[in-house]
Amino acid sequence: MEPRVTLITLGVRDLERAVAFYEDGLGWPLSGASVEGEVAFFKTGGTVLAFWGREALAEDANIDSEGSRFSSFALAHNVAEKEEVDSVLEEAVSAGATITREAQDVFFGRNGYFADPEGYLWEVAWNPSFPLSEDGTISLPD
Amino acid sequence: MEPRVTLITLGVRDLERAVAFYEDGLGWPLSGASVEGEVAFFKTGGTVLAFWGREALAEDANIDSEGSRFSSFALAHNVAEKEEVDSVLEEAVSAGATITREAQDVFFGRNGYFADPEGYLWEVAWNPSFPLSEDGTISLPD
Repeated sequence: MEPRVTLITLGVRDLERAVAFYEDGLGWPLSGASVEGEVAFFKTGGTVLAFWGREALAEDANIDSEGSRFSSFALAHNVAEKEEVDSVLEEAVSAGATITREAQDVFFGRNGYFADPEGYLWEVAWNPSFPLSEDGTISLPD
Repeated sequence: MEPRVTLITLGVRDLERAVAFYEDGLGWPLSGASVEGEVAFFKTGGTVLAFWGREALAEDANIDSEGSRFSSFALAHNVAEKEEVDSVLEEAVSAGATITREAQDVFFGRNGYFADPEGYLWEVAWNPSFPLSEDGTISLPD
């Protein structure tokens, strides 16, 4: 698993309020990849900051949203090839991680989740709509 | 405040275990800026992943480490000039953020913390040892 954080997902209780703060309050350009009322993406230098419902994130990661192990955010490690989702998850397990949700095909491509020894969530994702550049960053549609 | 995440600090209960996972398990190169037993830095593509004691982070951000508002991590927004720490914090407050710890001079430069409307912590930091590049990423010493 290469050292790479491509995206940070913050689980929010109130998406509209979060978008209002970052887009209207701070003046950050909202990516066109965002879906109103569902998910918001902001390009933040070398990474992407995503806002998604707290419950939706917990469900996707297969973690109890009310449990103490859910810190309500996830780091994402995007990969260039679909098969890498599975191989990266296997590598993380070999290193001592715990799979919270096995790799599966999803609407955007393929993903899965592991928790590091502290319980921090990583999403391993292949998303051809957010292509991975050679420098390890992802591109968002405008 | 420019849209920029320069560094992600994960507060950990067991630093040695976290470093063992990322450095030994996943094979990530540990930055020479790390201080054994204190803090660990990994360059992760366009951002930096830092591991620091959970209590130390809470204390630095002036947040109760046992309170529900502490999600045990912080996003960092590094700035190029010392005075920008204060002006970015002011801008965040105008947008609806809450200061958790006012800007102050610290051993590495100057920093302060705000919480966004969901309670997520941002550190605004000026750290001349981690210079900010034109592309909005920071450089770590080798």
